Amino acid sequence: MKILIIGAGGTLGQAVAEELGARHDIVRAGRSHGDVRVDLRDAGSVETMFREVGDLHAVVCAAGKVPFAPLAELDEAKYLAGVQDKLMGQIRLVQAGTPRLRDGGSFTLITGILTEQPIVAGACASLVNGAVEAFVRAAAIELPRGIRINAVSPNVLTESMGSYGPFFRGFEPVPAARAALAFARSVEGRQTGQVYKVW
Amino acid sequence: MKILIIGAGGTLGQAVAEELGARHDIVRAGRSHGDVRVDLRDAGSVETMFREVGDLHAVVCAAGKVPFAPLAELDEAKYLAGVQDKLMGQIRLVQAGTPRLRDGGSFTLITGILTEQPIVAGACASLVNGAVEAFVRAAAIELPRGIRINAVSPNVLTESMGSYGPFFRGFEPVPAARAALAFARSVEGRQTGQVYKVW
Ligand SMILES: NC(=O)c1ccc[n+]([C@@H]2O[C@H](COP(=O)([O-])OP(=O)(O)OC[C@H]3O[C@@H](n4cnc5c(N)ncnc54)[C@H](OP(=O)(O)O)[C@@H]3O)[C@@H](O)[C@H]2O)c1
Ligand SMILES: NC(=O)c1ccc[n+]([C@@H]2O[C@H](COP(=O)([O-])OP(=O)(O)OC[C@H]3O[C@@H](n4cnc5c(N)ncnc54)[C@H](OP(=O)(O)O)[C@@H]3O)[C@@H](O)[C@H]2O)c1
Repeated sequence: MKILIIGAGGTLGQAVAEELGARHDIVRAGRSHGDVRVDLRDAGSVETMFREVGDLHAVVCAAGKVPFAPLAELDEAKYLAGVQDKLMGQIRLVQAGTPRLRDGGSFTLITGILTEQPIVAGACASLVNGAVEAFVRAAAIELPRGIRINAVSPNVLTESMGSYGPFFRGFEPVPAARAALAFARSVEGRQTGQVYKVW
Repeated sequence: MKILIIGAGGTLGQAVAEELGARHDIVRAGRSHGDVRVDLRDAGSVETMFREVGDLHAVVCAAGKVPFAPLAELDEAKYLAGVQDKLMGQIRLVQAGTPRLRDGGSFTLITGILTEQPIVAGACASLVNGAVEAFVRAAAIELPRGIRINAVSPNVLTESMGSYGPFFRGFEPVPAARAALAFARSVEGRQTGQVYKVW
């Protein structure tokens, strides 16, 4: 399969590229690295990426930024930054990517444990993840030509504990390679509308 | 208790005002009806409402619009309309309302069954509901002074089947009065971070 991975240079994305790269042709996309450059916050940039890349069997997202700040400090601008990047960015992938996907192709989006298990300073992350997961369930029943869509929801990654550790005390970190398996399950399986929890 | 109900003139809001009004002082807010006027899409308007209304024991939301359209027709403007109204509108209530709530007071927000059970043309509604529910779980652990927050997620309302029926074939409608009970459970109970499903 020809698989586009957005965020392929990141902590999670590298592991996903390694897992899927063992069996498939990978096109790596990122904001500042990769075979093709894209900014998920910009619908035009997402369109351009798909034109450059051509037809695909799968689109995988391992990108998406959200601000972390105490609830009282989350102002409108911060919420909208998260909404524009990890939420609308992934929806733009689905909107612009659908015509580029082969019949039966798939989208695999990224969320995270904060949808269900909140942490202090994580309200915007929770909000965005919850939105993406509900969108995945809804889009699954409307995508044309057997195109599928799932999300992967990892716990905090072992590789990220250096920086995220203080926010995730008591959470059981998972190696990025384990989270990457869920992406393979989505891309190479047949399910749709699923949220694969890696926790 | 002194309870502010936003959307008190609507199909759901009338039932909530009747249920809570039997035991409490109700302040009715709406876009074009009620004791006080507010537009949830406008942060300034929400601030002004809270200044007018003064201190409160509970804030209840029974408002919030989202566009319904087939997935392929949901463009960026439609998603953002839903995000600005039912999603950010309810977050604005929490941001601006927190300083106005008494210790141990509560927010009760509104979502709906589409978070988990999608319908055709409902992807934006699902997205917004999923975001609000995850936000509720996250905000619950950060709100100060014992302030609580829950969401009510009703099935389609019996009273709305005249217009929504064709979209909700096979769903079991619930009377607005039954959904209103969940609001009382949130306001008059002690739980926080809950999504009360009325389905
Ligand atoms: N790390 C964790 O513990 C963890 C746990 C659960 C969920 N997640 C989620 O997993 C995703 C990836 O996290 P990560 O820790 O791997 O992040 P990361 O190491 O910071 O990598 C992010 C990747 O996304 C790309 N990117 C960033 N902003 C972009 C934009 N606006 N448009 C296009 N590409 C963009 C970056 O590209 P360049 O490098 O080319 O600039 C980079 O490849 C995030 O959505 C995160 O919330 C992470
Ligand atoms: N009806 C259902 O079957 C159903 C099922 C599950 C969930 N829900 C959810 O329940 C909520 C209420 O639904 P409903 O059917 O009762 O709606 P509705 O009958 O249309 O009533 C909406 C109410 O909200 C007010 N409102 C609308 N836009 C507003 C804005 N921008 N700012 C402030 N107030 C605004 C209206 O005020 P004015 O009348 O003063 O203009 C009205 O009182 C919605 O979030 C809906 O998604 C409904």
